[in-house]
Amino acid sequence: MTKTNMLIAQSGGPSSAINASITGAIARGMASTRIDNVLGAVNGMQGFLERRIINISDQMKTSEDFDLLIHTPAHALGSSRYKIPKGGKEIYGQIVEILKDYNIKYFFYNGGNDSMDTVNKLADFLRDAGEDIMAVGIPKTIDNDLELTDHTPGFGSAARYVATSVAEVYLDTTVYPAPAATIVEIMGRNAGWLTAASALARDCGVPAPHLIYLPEVDFDASAFIKEVKALLAKEPHILIAVSEGIHDAQGNYLADTGAEADMFGHKTLGGAATVLEAMIKREADVPKLKTRAIQLSTLQRAAAHCASSVDLEESYQCGYRAVEAAVNGMSDIMITIARISDVPYVVRYDVGRLDDIANKEKKVPADWIVRDGTDVSAEMLRYLRPLVAGETSELLTEGLPRFFRFDLGRTVMPWEVK
Amino acid sequence: MTKTNMLIAQSGGPSSAINASITGAIARGMASTRIDNVLGAVNGMQGFLERRIINISDQMKTSEDFDLLIHTPAHALGSSRYKIPKGGKEIYGQIVEILKDYNIKYFFYNGGNDSMDTVNKLADFLRDAGEDIMAVGIPKTIDNDLELTDHTPGFGSAARYVATSVAEVYLDTTVYPAPAATIVEIMGRNAGWLTAASALARDCGVPAPHLIYLPEVDFDASAFIKEVKALLAKEPHILIAVSEGIHDAQGNYLADTGAEADMFGHKTLGGAATVLEAMIKREADVPKLKTRAIQLSTLQRAAAHCASSVDLEESYQCGYRAVEAAVNGMSDIMITIARISDVPYVVRYDVGRLDDIANKEKKVPADWIVRDGTDVSAEMLRYLRPLVAGETSELLTEGLPRFFRFDLGRTVMPWEVK
Repeated sequence: MTKTNMLIAQSGGPSSAINASITGAIARGMASTRIDNVLGAVNGMQGFLERRIINISDQMKTSEDFDLLIHTPAHALGSSRYKIPKGGKEIYGQIVEILKDYNIKYFFYNGGNDSMDTVNKLADFLRDAGEDIMAVGIPKTIDNDLELTDHTPGFGSAARYVATSVAEVYLDTTVYPAPAATIVEIMGRNAGWLTAASALARDCGVPAPHLIYLPEVDFDASAFIKEVKALLAKEPHILIAVSEGIHDAQGNYLADTGAEADMFGHKTLGGAATVLEAMIKREADVPKLKTRAIQLSTLQRAAAHCASSVDLEESYQCGYRAVEAAVNGMSDIMITIARISDVPYVVRYDVGRLDDIANKEKKVPADWIVRDGTDVSAEMLRYLRPLVAGETSELLTEGLPRFFRFDLGRTVMPWEVK
Repeated sequence: MTKTNMLIAQSGGPSSAINASITGAIARGMASTRIDNVLGAVNGMQGFLERRIINISDQMKTSEDFDLLIHTPAHALGSSRYKIPKGGKEIYGQIVEILKDYNIKYFFYNGGNDSMDTVNKLADFLRDAGEDIMAVGIPKTIDNDLELTDHTPGFGSAARYVATSVAEVYLDTTVYPAPAATIVEIMGRNAGWLTAASALARDCGVPAPHLIYLPEVDFDASAFIKEVKALLAKEPHILIAVSEGIHDAQGNYLADTGAEADMFGHKTLGGAATVLEAMIKREADVPKLKTRAIQLSTLQRAAAHCASSVDLEESYQCGYRAVEAAVNGMSDIMITIARISDVPYVVRYDVGRLDDIANKEKKVPADWIVRDGTDVSAEMLRYLRPLVAGETSELLTEGLPRFFRFDLGRTVMPWEVK
């Protein structure tokens, strides 16, 4: 008898909860009487087109494997930057050919806006071609910029890392009596959600961050210096949280406009924080001021050791429910999270049409940005708080984490899973 | 009746375990029938000389305060960069005057090499002056470079953060098929212990770091590029761990020699990792190679959320036993940790003479550095493993840490504690 298979692939940038989503999908798929093999494509759509397909059902054996995969950061199946070319009809034809070769009836793509666009177009193509294959999206992005969903899997863990780290960095800056200005740069080029999460550091009992700059508001350098000077006149140690994507009214990214920082016209290397640091050094006019620019680097998206257990659970559920939806005949959709209440925190899972999600970007609402674009509102804090909650959830051996790693080179041929 | 008081102060750079040490000292002091008030100096010796002295016994009320203080990173009493000037006899006279004014019979200084030098000189002065005041050192440094002690409080937590973060960053670098070289820069200007701890990332099941460069070995740029090229010929994603203090055979720090990175003779901004990144970009000759320099920044010393519970416990014990030693009439000593066995991990606490510790730097032994200075030995791993162990020990509220903060402005006058 012919077998019915599902395939899952991952795309976009890493997060520490992304593998919780595929764990949910794999668990539901392996437990389904309608699915024989759970397959995975290596390196997203790019690897799929190269037929780099592994049999996940063969590689996950024990319940410990599932536990480890949930806690493993960054795409366990690899990612890709591949985008299907515009009007690439023949590519969709190729995709369908591979899907049919491997008897894949359910296709899942775990990623952000671009990935949802791919699933959207593939689902349309499958429907128009009369193929009985379901294509479903599983949301993932630390940027929290997907439409229709209250928030995105991965965001809560990144937000927890940012808030915790900003609070700890602040305490570090306060130990010497000399004045100090620290600028912490946070990911999110177009949407400021993750930078906004730095405000939760105040829940740790510290006054930081003193200023918060999101990319939703045009950055005004002279207003910035005025704020910094006023703050330093009042307290010796200040911390500023800034999005990597802040830009002036003309749309020039600050990270690209470091030229003034140097009298010889050399550009400042590094990102927005480095440019702001140079600006403060040059303009703040505070004797003995110590400045420091800190980039939270890729750890803000990969620090599984600081993952929110709420986020991991929701990420798992999104994967799990994507498989249920597909098996029930749904396609061209993405699983969404709807918030019922903040306190107690209650959500329900729903589905959104990919037409309404693909290629759209949800930004921070203007009325959640306050104090002339230097802070976020109480509504924002109420929104953020439940997302970072939960106990630290780690699987440690002698104090160190362990990870699940697929054997990505162990690809299967179609006849092995038919 | 006249009261007998103890005073504790902190110095040097922050760590996430430094307040566990003062918690141990405070707990022992408050429980001692020989001590009436536990006092604290704000901003180390500098604040002490300015009589910025608080009454800790008045500010710590509940057992939760003690729990929170253990888990609070970075000097809760503040630090200072103040060093007593050479031959500053009159300064020691001033110190003794303040000690007597406040009826302080036991003086504790929590810090690294420089701080131990201060305690050493103060203890000598007190003895020569015939004063019955004990001066005892409590070790602290993420650099692990103090003599006579197997390791230093604070090191294990920083090591755990470094190993965990390197493993997570490595997974993040592997998700795209394109080749990538990532350089992670780690603190420790003269001693490579913390950089060596990056090798524990391999215990998480990843091959990173592929190369490890400590400041104990002169850095050879051409050998480095040869190693990088050979590695990239074999595998697409490599991670290099490097101490901030690597230098060439002439002693020039790499962080200061970025001049070649740019054809116009501009220096590369940033540290050693940025210089190595530029070097790889220029010389490695690998098409489409993605490079990234990551500085673990102050989080490696402040990330209490990743503290080793073994380290926190030992740090607490060092403070606790310092008070016991002083009350038993010991002075001019530092509490040390002696290792009895690796597996099971057993230590005992001892005391070391400050004459043998002050101003000395314990470096990584040459025979623990292997593979032509690009890796560390199995002995190093055996040494490191127990230090990072333990469960994550946090006090969370809704997923975020809370900290204990003294009211550092609430100073007391001598007559209030006499």
